[in-house]
Amino acid sequence: MAKINENFTKLKKNYLFIDIAKRIAAYKEKNPGKEIIRMGIGDVTLPIPAAAVEFMKRGANEMGVKETFRGYEDTGRGYDFLKKAVADYYAEREITIPLDDIFINDGAKSDTGNITDIFSENSVVLVSDPVYPVYVDSNIMGGKQLIYADATAENGFKAMPNYNVKCDLIYLCSPNNPTGAVYTKDELKVWVDYANAKKAVIIFDAAYEAFIYDKTLPRSIFEIPGAKTCAIEMCSLSKTAGFTGLRCGYTIVPEELKAYTEDGGEVSLRDTWTRRQGSKFNGVSYPVQCAAAGVFSPEGRRQVQTNIDYYMENASIILDTLRSLKIPCTGGENSPYIWFKTPSNMDSWQFFDYLLENIQVVGTPGEGFGKNGDGWFRLTSFNTHENTAEAMSRLKHMLR
Amino acid sequence: MAKINENFTKLKKNYLFIDIAKRIAAYKEKNPGKEIIRMGIGDVTLPIPAAAVEFMKRGANEMGVKETFRGYEDTGRGYDFLKKAVADYYAEREITIPLDDIFINDGAKSDTGNITDIFSENSVVLVSDPVYPVYVDSNIMGGKQLIYADATAENGFKAMPNYNVKCDLIYLCSPNNPTGAVYTKDELKVWVDYANAKKAVIIFDAAYEAFIYDKTLPRSIFEIPGAKTCAIEMCSLSKTAGFTGLRCGYTIVPEELKAYTEDGGEVSLRDTWTRRQGSKFNGVSYPVQCAAAGVFSPEGRRQVQTNIDYYMENASIILDTLRSLKIPCTGGENSPYIWFKTPSNMDSWQFFDYLLENIQVVGTPGEGFGKNGDGWFRLTSFNTHENTAEAMSRLKHMLR
Repeated sequence: MAKINENFTKLKKNYLFIDIAKRIAAYKEKNPGKEIIRMGIGDVTLPIPAAAVEFMKRGANEMGVKETFRGYEDTGRGYDFLKKAVADYYAEREITIPLDDIFINDGAKSDTGNITDIFSENSVVLVSDPVYPVYVDSNIMGGKQLIYADATAENGFKAMPNYNVKCDLIYLCSPNNPTGAVYTKDELKVWVDYANAKKAVIIFDAAYEAFIYDKTLPRSIFEIPGAKTCAIEMCSLSKTAGFTGLRCGYTIVPEELKAYTEDGGEVSLRDTWTRRQGSKFNGVSYPVQCAAAGVFSPEGRRQVQTNIDYYMENASIILDTLRSLKIPCTGGENSPYIWFKTPSNMDSWQFFDYLLENIQVVGTPGEGFGKNGDGWFRLTSFNTHENTAEAMSRLKHMLR
Repeated sequence: MAKINENFTKLKKNYLFIDIAKRIAAYKEKNPGKEIIRMGIGDVTLPIPAAAVEFMKRGANEMGVKETFRGYEDTGRGYDFLKKAVADYYAEREITIPLDDIFINDGAKSDTGNITDIFSENSVVLVSDPVYPVYVDSNIMGGKQLIYADATAENGFKAMPNYNVKCDLIYLCSPNNPTGAVYTKDELKVWVDYANAKKAVIIFDAAYEAFIYDKTLPRSIFEIPGAKTCAIEMCSLSKTAGFTGLRCGYTIVPEELKAYTEDGGEVSLRDTWTRRQGSKFNGVSYPVQCAAAGVFSPEGRRQVQTNIDYYMENASIILDTLRSLKIPCTGGENSPYIWFKTPSNMDSWQFFDYLLENIQVVGTPGEGFGKNGDGWFRLTSFNTHENTAEAMSRLKHMLR
């Protein structure tokens, strides 16, 4: 008799963004004429850079010609041309990443979820609260125990370690989704030292690193001494280059990184991840890898920067509005997310409905990210200037 | 302290095809001048159909223009235009597949591995021996118990159920990888009845269905009455349309299919799989889905058929050679794989080395697929006519 993985019954019934999609659909059915401005799910609105399109079409053409056709990738870990582009991107910041430590992924979401496969079911997993739900759900599915570190207004929404707490895995996301908070180098160093002391592994989600303008803030955990013995870094081109629909990113698993067997033996995590991927993944589509290489080309880099600047102008519009309304908020600087206190002490789903009903703006209720998110709300800067300005004008009008 | 998933220590050290790649690399280094003919890993040599290239480039162009740019797919389950093409493909064979039962995947390998996530760790998983290693490895990684049903020359390499054996999950692959054996409708009906009687779930790998020319043989398990209450089907465009490097296929999880909680409650597997994918997958790249739609277009279908005919001519060349040498063999009809007895009772890795050393032909040692594979060898029909003919001429010369 086929039995279900019982861990699935412990999940919240719906994935947050599917809940939101349902509420929007219900509203639209009742109010077909109303124009909704979406600042909820972190999806982008600008097209992918022209260089990515060109590189991708070249890749597609190669696939249609016998002499240049490419079948299976030998390892499924990514083509050297793209791994080299990634390594060069790190080298600009004086971080050395050997090509063998780089795994090209189909977006950070798959790998942040799948990486749990290689760790013991008995692992204690530390996440912050609020937290990106994928970290929680994928660990619940795997039967792992979750513990939470509070991220609140008091600590600037940056959870910090407690040496009395034991854990095996730690998820950190900086710039943070959902709060937009960004760790300083000193703060990350505290985490790296804690992880090394506890022999824990940090899974560092750097999906929003490209939004960091402040050169004193770390864009990679590997800027921190000691990180290579305790951290895996995952990055995505989704937000940087509009790859939400193209699906490509990269995961760095340093050769130096170890985990342990029950009897205390050391095991290479890079080898273990390689083994997992060898059996369950066949690599990213070749033309998509070409598109990603286009992002790292000189013209791609320029085009991407223009897009990021565009989104960060939106973030400024949102921040200025919230500040003018004297609403407590965080993020929006060095981050595409803006996190703010709901007015009139509404709970965050109430405020979601209130915004949708009254000004047809969709955001994300903070409670969807954890108990500390209740009473808070997330907006993204990924819409157009026009829509962002319109939404903020509606918000001002409503709350004044 | 980060602990490894101990199940990984139970795996064979290397994935079969990585082992083979290493032996080839070692041989090439020693013998740089020798030209190797690869008939080992099931990779194709013909480029993808022109229709797929055109559709993909159109998709890439759309991603570069604001008005047609697509970000996240709402569900990550695939675009309706492609799911509709898949449903129409089944409808030609009078099989009705609702769009909501279709999940577009990035190749059957990911889903055959990841599907194990949704089943209990205590599951007993039945696979045939010999078997495609991904089924075994992904279930070992998940801590599940494997049992084997013998597929031998005696039963035409078609394992059949034994009602005295209890199991929860059953992997079937037809046309079979590695043996090329194809179940008849009557034989599959025995499996469907067995699975329904045991409330077990069949994971049916139909990756090679397009190679079935004999219209009396089933190309989908859903041609068998009763299959929708006991089977998941996975299919790939890798071999059909040369998508080994493009990465796209589809998984069918019928609404009717249930599994059970420990206390006997019924759970929808389609909902559970949706939940898994919602947290760990963001869908297949949009331009890749466009390419897949191109495969199902009228011109794509014609181009694909030409490619399949080409490979099946290779299969005939191989079969004719083996038969002329009086070597016992199976497959090669309705299947791109040819499975044969190694000459002189060599074990299958000995024969691998013997072929590589003497005639520079690479195949796959049957032992890599299980104990019943020892003394057997797999060749694929995916190389060119020229190379296939040359390899068979060398084989004839060597064995005569």
